Amino acid sequence: MSKAEISKLGHFGLVSTDLEKSLWFFKEVVGLEETDVMNGVHYLRAWGDFEHHTLSIRAGEEAYLDHIAWRTKRREDVDLFAEQLENSGIAIEWVEEGTEKGQGKAFRFKLPSNHTFEIYYDMEKTLASPETRSVLKNQTHKSWNKGVSPRRIDHVNLLSSLPANELVDFMQEHLGFNLREYVEAPDGTYVGAWMSVTPLVHDIAFSFDPNSPSTHEVHHIAYWLDNAQDLLRAADILKENGIFFKGPGKHGISQAMYIYAIDPGSGVRLEIFTNGYLIFEPDWEPIRWSVDEMDIGFTYWGDQMDANTENNPTIKA
Amino acid sequence: MSKAEISKLGHFGLVSTDLEKSLWFFKEVVGLEETDVMNGVHYLRAWGDFEHHTLSIRAGEEAYLDHIAWRTKRREDVDLFAEQLENSGIAIEWVEEGTEKGQGKAFRFKLPSNHTFEIYYDMEKTLASPETRSVLKNQTHKSWNKGVSPRRIDHVNLLSSLPANELVDFMQEHLGFNLREYVEAPDGTYVGAWMSVTPLVHDIAFSFDPNSPSTHEVHHIAYWLDNAQDLLRAADILKENGIFFKGPGKHGISQAMYIYAIDPGSGVRLEIFTNGYLIFEPDWEPIRWSVDEMDIGFTYWGDQMDANTENNPTIKA
Amino acid sequence: MSKAEISKLGHFGLVSTDLEKSLWFFKEVVGLEETDVMNGVHYLRAWGDFEHHTLSIRAGEEAYLDHIAWRTKRREDVDLFAEQLENSGIAIEWVEEGTEKGQGKAFRFKLPSNHTFEIYYDMEKTLASPETRSVLKNQTHKSWNKGVSPRRIDHVNLLSSLPANELVDFMQEHLGFNLREYVEAPDGTYVGAWMSVTPLVHDIAFSFDPNSPSTHEVHHIAYWLDNAQDLLRAADILKENGIFFKGPGKHGISQAMYIYAIDPGSGVRLEIFTNGYLIFEPDWEPIRWSVDEMDIGFTYWGDQMDANTENNPTIKA
Amino acid sequence: MSKAEISKLGHFGLVSTDLEKSLWFFKEVVGLEETDVMNGVHYLRAWGDFEHHTLSIRAGEEAYLDHIAWRTKRREDVDLFAEQLENSGIAIEWVEEGTEKGQGKAFRFKLPSNHTFEIYYDMEKTLASPETRSVLKNQTHKSWNKGVSPRRIDHVNLLSSLPANELVDFMQEHLGFNLREYVEAPDGTYVGAWMSVTPLVHDIAFSFDPNSPSTHEVHHIAYWLDNAQDLLRAADILKENGIFFKGPGKHGISQAMYIYAIDPGSGVRLEIFTNGYLIFEPDWEPIRWSVDEMDIGFTYWGDQMDANTENNPTIKA
Repeated sequence: MSKAEISKLGHFGLVSTDLEKSLWFFKEVVGLEETDVMNGVHYLRAWGDFEHHTLSIRAGEEAYLDHIAWRTKRREDVDLFAEQLENSGIAIEWVEEGTEKGQGKAFRFKLPSNHTFEIYYDMEKTLASPETRSVLKNQTHKSWNKGVSPRRIDHVNLLSSLPANELVDFMQEHLGFNLREYVEAPDGTYVGAWMSVTPLVHDIAFSFDPNSPSTHEVHHIAYWLDNAQDLLRAADILKENGIFFKGPGKHGISQAMYIYAIDPGSGVRLEIFTNGYLIFEPDWEPIRWSVDEMDIGFTYWGDQMDANTENNPTIKA
Repeated sequence: MSKAEISKLGHFGLVSTDLEKSLWFFKEVVGLEETDVMNGVHYLRAWGDFEHHTLSIRAGEEAYLDHIAWRTKRREDVDLFAEQLENSGIAIEWVEEGTEKGQGKAFRFKLPSNHTFEIYYDMEKTLASPETRSVLKNQTHKSWNKGVSPRRIDHVNLLSSLPANELVDFMQEHLGFNLREYVEAPDGTYVGAWMSVTPLVHDIAFSFDPNSPSTHEVHHIAYWLDNAQDLLRAADILKENGIFFKGPGKHGISQAMYIYAIDPGSGVRLEIFTNGYLIFEPDWEPIRWSVDEMDIGFTYWGDQMDANTENNPTIKA
Repeated sequence: MSKAEISKLGHFGLVSTDLEKSLWFFKEVVGLEETDVMNGVHYLRAWGDFEHHTLSIRAGEEAYLDHIAWRTKRREDVDLFAEQLENSGIAIEWVEEGTEKGQGKAFRFKLPSNHTFEIYYDMEKTLASPETRSVLKNQTHKSWNKGVSPRRIDHVNLLSSLPANELVDFMQEHLGFNLREYVEAPDGTYVGAWMSVTPLVHDIAFSFDPNSPSTHEVHHIAYWLDNAQDLLRAADILKENGIFFKGPGKHGISQAMYIYAIDPGSGVRLEIFTNGYLIFEPDWEPIRWSVDEMDIGFTYWGDQMDANTENNPTIKA
Repeated sequence: MSKAEISKLGHFGLVSTDLEKSLWFFKEVVGLEETDVMNGVHYLRAWGDFEHHTLSIRAGEEAYLDHIAWRTKRREDVDLFAEQLENSGIAIEWVEEGTEKGQGKAFRFKLPSNHTFEIYYDMEKTLASPETRSVLKNQTHKSWNKGVSPRRIDHVNLLSSLPANELVDFMQEHLGFNLREYVEAPDGTYVGAWMSVTPLVHDIAFSFDPNSPSTHEVHHIAYWLDNAQDLLRAADILKENGIFFKGPGKHGISQAMYIYAIDPGSGVRLEIFTNGYLIFEPDWEPIRWSVDEMDIGFTYWGDQMDANTENNPTIKA
């Protein structure tokens, strides 16, 4: 039987200390569509997302990313991954079907950093309501209904007080991710690593900061816009709604444009993201950036985040 | 041994009746970079292409697309594809290594429509000259050096007097392509089909027109720009340089923006292309458009090509 | 006493046969803000308009543009214009202060074509409500609240079965407008004329078509967007809302990008407009386009309107 | 006889310590067109500028802005301004016709801050060469020939160790400029002032910094681009060419997007500028920003200049 494979980043499960404010931020300001509410969990997706949801939000006493979900390539890969991970001594925990609206069989496990991943295959492909449905058969919702209006989920960036090396190894060995770009300190420590199973430069990135409050922080979650100028429009919208953000700017690594905005409800950082390059080469050599080259790697140009993690509060995952 | 796989569209081999004019068009107006000239063949690529070339142009008495090249996923896939195709009774012709600058072992064969494909794996990853090299380690040339300045090769659209059905079957069976969207006549004839091995909606499309001059025409070759507005700038540049073009407009199928411009040297149609969606879903159901829905499928909005093939000269492939 | 002068285009007074649909179009799809409703008249403006309204809409049994209003440079210019016009034998009709919400002393008169103009100076500079007010002191409403979200009113284009020559003369002599560009037939007939009192290429244009249903039709009214890509977003929004439109395209004359959309309530054509050039030269020589040059003059590139007026219903003014 | 009036900003006369590098920057990187070279002076303009030049550059032992030239509304305004200024005790110096290529009768004088202004009316409207001429009759050169490719000259910002108050008074009294926006300290000092004779928010701005090296520094000169995304493309071009710049960002005051780049030859700061609003209101009330509101006034969002003048070298004017 062939090796289990991940097809794509599926969704984020967010817990917010101020559910109402998080819903206002993600629905009205960012402009995600709500497909369902069940047991106090709100299920959202962007207008071009094809699955039932790419973000769920529920209330909690502490804000954190409950789980980051990855969809497998085949239905049987869920069991296969479970088996392979357990064989490697990694504990898994099954999530009963239907616990998460629209989702089939799934399990969760923890990275060496203690970040929580979920593996699933089956997920409803809910149609949009007639009022918000696009006139196009290949698009879920009308675009530009409200707010920033990103097209789809893009990636996640995890922050840790552990060097990224061990996480990169884990992702390659257990989940089949490819290393695409990385920043390496003179002593061999990976300060940052960008990895993917798709031609996107990253479905996931790992950031290392020894001063990180824990091993399992979320640097940001990201949604995609089609055009750089949509990002400038996003900046206007964020500013007019009193949202704190950094950017716009352009990364050297990934060549993508960014804005980093803070959800005032949960404190999670949302990257609004566009442009960048795709990797179709089967023999891609990971791009190595030395610490000296980090500046242009992180910021090709534009407004940037304060490098100091202490000034950039994060939430746990 | 596992099945041979295609990783990506590699390059186009173009023959032009007016080499000088084609070089002016592709180098000065479109803004591709010339990496090499050998034996009268000019090798070009876009600033973000990672291989030695994505377009070659040489002089000939007739204009045609000599071959469309596909890169395999692994080196051994070249032999494997050769074997599989020959086992299926398809004649192949080996291209001696080095015949095409930068390229390793390769062979060519013909589709049922007589369009010529090339299969290869090894290709030089030539560095740009110091003058045109980007300051970024993950980008080949400086962007925006000249003209329209697309980022990379995108796809090819082949026109035939054969219904697309047989070609779709061939691509699925022999080359592992996925059908992503299609237009189907009431009698089951595929009028158009969009297929890919990557998350792009199409690496290749097939257009059927019973009045097509032959079974093996090129509807267009395509290069990618990052932003919709880059396409508007392209329209200005094309107009100021006296290039005939249709567009800009936006397709329903693929959701991409387009301009169709004619190379005044060879007559090949070049699509300048941006936006659109990516398919990461492993269980993608091909989107079927009926003939009644074709209008919005082809043109969501904007300036469109005359549907009549007779008014739209094509070259052979 | 110095000559009376016009400072700017003020507003349009629209009568619609389907008020509800017109309000949906202009408020939800186009995204204008409603500042007031009084006596069945709805007063709208764009987020960057500084006056109380730039468009009013009321119900009527026939759809037409009730009046096109021009603001004078000084308060005393209202009386001065009234006097000058009457001295030239042109009948004027005073509009009682407050008849139109926010507006002071004003009068109306008819062009030789029978289009109705209004002259005023005083107009309330209403603040936006706290909820929609911009965080910027120099901007009226938050931008991007809803729909297309143009910044401001731009110009009007009047269609007539009278050649534009007489109207150009009238505008120059009585209202101090400058001719900026024009299309001239071999017999000296002005087929089109673009005129302004501001550095915009046109605050008003006149289109001549012998087959026009009357001497006093409205070809279109226009609102301004800051960026070309905002127009592409507008095309998506119009299409998803089932609005009929032509474009996007770029005019040669004025060098501006356009979309022409039809208000499904009144049938008035709305141009969504951006880019183009400004005329600061005090010795501007009007640009003459011959009939042979009309094609590039009207459409530098892109999707264009059917030239045949019969296929392009208009409303009266 | 009526009062003399300014119609527009005409051009900048730049002296560079490294002429070759300044020419490379302005011609190849910024993409201005050279219309003439005479007596070692290079005359440049943007593709949409209608006059013979909007920037002249010559070599000198010190870099400075030799003069800032303003075009009058009428030919007789040159003499009229000369007379009015002399009557007010301001010394003027005539520039012999033809000294500056293409320019007629002109004179220079100094602001209270010692910045040098030039007043002229006659200027050649040179046609572009057939190779670079636009296909449009209302556009001078083909757009997008090279580099950033701005459309036209926009404004100048002068820095002084004198509070802006006296300069604002001077501009209003002697040259008829209108105050559009200003930043006022609690003691009444104008920290910044934006003034215009056109509907642009500013043809000129004055910045006050007590630590400015002199009373007559140039903060920046500015050229205009049509679209915000052109600015993002400009950032790529500047970065790839090793040019130091700040931005992109968006000002609150003027609502315009900006990049500030340094000419490596002369050290003059060039603002690349787009969007923003126009003032057509004849009764515009200057927008007052308190020192508390300065932050959002200067930077609505994005990357900003270090406020400290000492870190931002300027050249004299």
